[in-house]
Amino acid sequence: MRVSLGELAVRFGCELRGDPDTPVERVATLANAAPGTLSFLANPRYRPQLNATRAAAVVLTAAAAENCPVAVLVCENPYATYARIATLLHPPAPLEPGTHPSALIAPSAHVDPSAQVGPYCVIGEQVSIGPRCRLGAHCLLGPGVRLDADVQLIARVTLGSGVSVGERGIVQPGVVIGADGFGFAPEGGRWLKVPQVGTVRIGADVEIGANTTIDRGAIDDTVIEEGVKLDNLIQIAHNVRIGAHTAIAGCTGVSGSTTIGRRCMIGGSAGFAGHISVADDVVVTGMSMITHSIERAGVYSSGIPFEEAHTWRRLVARFKRIGLLEGRVRQLERAAGIKPEQQDEADD
Amino acid sequence: MRVSLGELAVRFGCELRGDPDTPVERVATLANAAPGTLSFLANPRYRPQLNATRAAAVVLTAAAAENCPVAVLVCENPYATYARIATLLHPPAPLEPGTHPSALIAPSAHVDPSAQVGPYCVIGEQVSIGPRCRLGAHCLLGPGVRLDADVQLIARVTLGSGVSVGERGIVQPGVVIGADGFGFAPEGGRWLKVPQVGTVRIGADVEIGANTTIDRGAIDDTVIEEGVKLDNLIQIAHNVRIGAHTAIAGCTGVSGSTTIGRRCMIGGSAGFAGHISVADDVVVTGMSMITHSIERAGVYSSGIPFEEAHTWRRLVARFKRIGLLEGRVRQLERAAGIKPEQQDEADD
Amino acid sequence: MRVSLGELAVRFGCELRGDPDTPVERVATLANAAPGTLSFLANPRYRPQLNATRAAAVVLTAAAAENCPVAVLVCENPYATYARIATLLHPPAPLEPGTHPSALIAPSAHVDPSAQVGPYCVIGEQVSIGPRCRLGAHCLLGPGVRLDADVQLIARVTLGSGVSVGERGIVQPGVVIGADGFGFAPEGGRWLKVPQVGTVRIGADVEIGANTTIDRGAIDDTVIEEGVKLDNLIQIAHNVRIGAHTAIAGCTGVSGSTTIGRRCMIGGSAGFAGHISVADDVVVTGMSMITHSIERAGVYSSGIPFEEAHTWRRLVARFKRIGLLEGRVRQLERAAGIKPEQQDEADD
Repeated sequence: MRVSLGELAVRFGCELRGDPDTPVERVATLANAAPGTLSFLANPRYRPQLNATRAAAVVLTAAAAENCPVAVLVCENPYATYARIATLLHPPAPLEPGTHPSALIAPSAHVDPSAQVGPYCVIGEQVSIGPRCRLGAHCLLGPGVRLDADVQLIARVTLGSGVSVGERGIVQPGVVIGADGFGFAPEGGRWLKVPQVGTVRIGADVEIGANTTIDRGAIDDTVIEEGVKLDNLIQIAHNVRIGAHTAIAGCTGVSGSTTIGRRCMIGGSAGFAGHISVADDVVVTGMSMITHSIERAGVYSSGIPFEEAHTWRRLVARFKRIGLLEGRVRQLERAAGIKPEQQDEADD
Repeated sequence: MRVSLGELAVRFGCELRGDPDTPVERVATLANAAPGTLSFLANPRYRPQLNATRAAAVVLTAAAAENCPVAVLVCENPYATYARIATLLHPPAPLEPGTHPSALIAPSAHVDPSAQVGPYCVIGEQVSIGPRCRLGAHCLLGPGVRLDADVQLIARVTLGSGVSVGERGIVQPGVVIGADGFGFAPEGGRWLKVPQVGTVRIGADVEIGANTTIDRGAIDDTVIEEGVKLDNLIQIAHNVRIGAHTAIAGCTGVSGSTTIGRRCMIGGSAGFAGHISVADDVVVTGMSMITHSIERAGVYSSGIPFEEAHTWRRLVARFKRIGLLEGRVRQLERAAGIKPEQQDEADD
Repeated sequence: MRVSLGELAVRFGCELRGDPDTPVERVATLANAAPGTLSFLANPRYRPQLNATRAAAVVLTAAAAENCPVAVLVCENPYATYARIATLLHPPAPLEPGTHPSALIAPSAHVDPSAQVGPYCVIGEQVSIGPRCRLGAHCLLGPGVRLDADVQLIARVTLGSGVSVGERGIVQPGVVIGADGFGFAPEGGRWLKVPQVGTVRIGADVEIGANTTIDRGAIDDTVIEEGVKLDNLIQIAHNVRIGAHTAIAGCTGVSGSTTIGRRCMIGGSAGFAGHISVADDVVVTGMSMITHSIERAGVYSSGIPFEEAHTWRRLVARFKRIGLLEGRVRQLERAAGIKPEQQDEADD
């Protein structure tokens, strides 16, 4: 799509520094921009690329706009404004209402006539598919699934019985929502399956990344509140609740019955124990192990940055004899007649 | 389904404290129970909810049954008894024997007439599907796959050539069993693919969680013994053997040719090196790194619980200069003429 | 397939020590070999099994061939030679050119007549499928996908719009390439989706393991260079670049815009921060956390091997009061009038 900078400035409320008639057709990174492209700068790491960019225009804050060699669209939140412009320049394929003849729709299912259902989808009894939903190929919807308006199942999404997805939800390929949770009762050295009779309720504006899994509740439901963003290959166990607008990066696992608050940001490959509660506005850095509840907003960590393997092995060896080191200090204290002060650690 | 407490007590061998004519229809959590529901208490964490529950009845041990405000079904293992009652109250959809017309069955495959094969399944040559198996939509079975009686492939399960699944196995959606293992021979700075000619043998009563992967053996087979329970998003590499009745939580990876014993319990996001052996009855806590063989039953760990990020960064910094700290202690010892006692660490 | 040792020696350039007329039909491990099988020894761990093997012949280096009780094929790289012989003895099923009648091919797609397209595949507009490609059942190719010659999509592979796969690529089941990256702009406490307009380019001779995900680029493309081998359940975020001939083990996650060099070897369950750069020829051991760029070839680690849980808990407790220990040492130094030497750590 081809739009002039003047039109973009008006439509997205930016101050334009440059020729309003200059057209842009697509987005580009600062480094690889060509004439006719629009770029943006949000991460200061890429600031040096601004000077050499060949973009037709760049979306920037007023502070960053000084000395920009090309046209600028000035705004307060360049990344968000960029996102809106990119959506305009690169619109999704138009919706093609209707059901592919190879899709199997149970008699009692209701598919809104404005929705699109792709090839080889299998739609169970009592399913309800709302207006303008878009189901790519190979989606499986168990009985009683409900999709609110404008939900997109990109392709090959599996939704177990009773799962509901709120308005404007986006589910990437390979996602499995509503498989049985990991519930087994020990009995005589064996595991007895515990029926998983809850389901999964997903709020509006949730996006779920490829091959992520969200298990159905054991009794009550697993709940993903509105605005949550889940990356790829995340495991959400039964009866977890993820608070609104929380974002979780890839490969993280959340164990059963754990509640994560609203507006949290969780790094990749983190792990949460079960039956704990994490407050609102908590940030967990990547690869952290969250073993107990977090009561207060803040940033929490337990990952250790790497070292060269040789150095690392010696650090680990010393760590493992840290008890001996304590003993040696105790011995020195006794010999010197010193009683440890239990002093504050603040004097780093 | 509607059953009286009296009937439940008789059928599951419980002592009933309450009116045998009271009906229950479904299960509920203690907190969200309504009249007509049955609940249970197994995790002491939820004990306080018992007093206020509105359940018609609760499954409890004799010890926990004192002062329960509602009817009680007393038994030794409330969680297991609950599981059985829940299965009675919430029976699975009845099996509908037969093959969906859209399923593609190779001529030499044998599907027991009592089995159910869902839409768009693709069943290869020489496959054998036993009595009362249930294959949901979109399952792919390569040549020579064998399913014993009563296996359930919930939907969208991929079984590579030769894979066998024992009686009563349950495989959740997105699972891939029998993909090629990660076998490559280095040669001149490149990787040469090593054919993976083994397969995967899965015992009876195994359950496998959504999007978990189990690779075929390089030469001999990968083996999952009877009663094993695997959670979601687990990676089992080629030639691994998992012993009977072992349970593994989500996001854990087991590298090639490693053997895990019987009745082990493995936490989430753990990692096992290749070519090692873990004894029977081993417990590994979440996010532990198992780098060498474990010879004896016991509990093993290497995950570090989180701290506030500020505290954590200082801990890591101190950890990384632990060698300097050792040096300072050595210097003090020399100055004081003290030889370290190498004392026992037990005096915590 | 049945081949004589003499023929194998000639074909693969080995020195034969044994009867050239001895036939072999399949491969076997040293431990489970039977007459008519060929085995190999590459990992010294399995050396003791050589003496008792019942294999007809074993592929070995000259050094290892001394005293071998059975026939030997001597070569420099036994694992690579074994791989080639195994491919000869266990050839893949022959290609059956043509498109299954249930596959849906968009009118503008081009499928080479020598390619095989399996049941229920859905092939989008402008797709190009090269000579001798093999697509198993249930593959989904979005618009504009390009497969070069001899690509194998084993089954149930999802390729988003514009994804390209180089010659001889192998993609295992459940893989999702070209789902949207995890790109959201924060705005007023919510997340605004940032369109992901790049795609994924995959070089020649790449293999990708089951249920691995590779996201499309946000603007520029995500790139997997030639010869890369990815294990199962790996997450590759948007705009990552993996250098040629790098191998990554299962459950590892690579965050957005990170570049990994050529010929790297990455262990399982490792995690890479975003926007960093890793040099060529880097080895990262399993479960390491790579938080910043690595400039030089070498081996890097941050995983801590396990201990018995009781020991581990005490180690962690001591680690968490390491600041107190430093304070006590400082106090002793002050009392003794000693200034720490900041001595080198080399005297382990």
